[in-house]
Amino acid sequence: MSEPAPFAYEGLDRAIHERARLGILTSLASQPKGLVFGDLRRLCGLTDGNLSRHLSVLQEAGLVEVTKSFERNRPQTRVAITAEGRKRFLDYLDVLDRVVREAAAAARSQGDDSPLPGFARA
Amino acid sequence: MSEPAPFAYEGLDRAIHERARLGILTSLASQPKGLVFGDLRRLCGLTDGNLSRHLSVLQEAGLVEVTKSFERNRPQTRVAITAEGRKRFLDYLDVLDRVVREAAAAARSQGDDSPLPGFARA
Repeated sequence: MSEPAPFAYEGLDRAIHERARLGILTSLASQPKGLVFGDLRRLCGLTDGNLSRHLSVLQEAGLVEVTKSFERNRPQTRVAITAEGRKRFLDYLDVLDRVVREAAAAARSQGDDSPLPGFARA
Repeated sequence: MSEPAPFAYEGLDRAIHERARLGILTSLASQPKGLVFGDLRRLCGLTDGNLSRHLSVLQEAGLVEVTKSFERNRPQTRVAITAEGRKRFLDYLDVLDRVVREAAAAARSQGDDSPLPGFARA
């Protein structure tokens, strides 16, 4: 499409934007050594199955890495954000911050039927 | 669950949070008289089918209303945000603003393995 679509929000990466994954990445972003699966699950209020499913999406997108090891003879799964993941998460947050400010300005404008962006030249 | 889940982000209403619907609501928020279907489709960069599908979700959630009329003998579909929709959209944006600031602070913290919220009492 050659027409402008100012509200398409293509910068909001779907791998990151989904609500549970946003929580997972925020949890991991402050933990350079990562988090064990059970802690991450509790922080995000997810079931085992849901967390596993979302981690697969994040792993495929290169945003997190999952390592399995043994701790006192018990298997342990540890999840960490990748360097690339941290960069893309910060880029996403910049876009989201602009979206929030734009949307809040639109939602607070009342009754003046603002001109439509991208329609000025039509 | 009685355990705290600080990153569950339950305030991020899924009906609003989905990327295309966020664009639709932002488009409509500044237009008290609503927008005709074709203009909304172009602003959001969506296909007819996708826009219809997302409008159904928004309509069922009580966030938008869709009216059909005739304009110069041609059928016209007009979409407007409801008063309830505007209120819930503003509430959502408040939550999202907090999420962005929290996530940006987490993503910018480096190497200090911040304490986990909600784990202090464990």
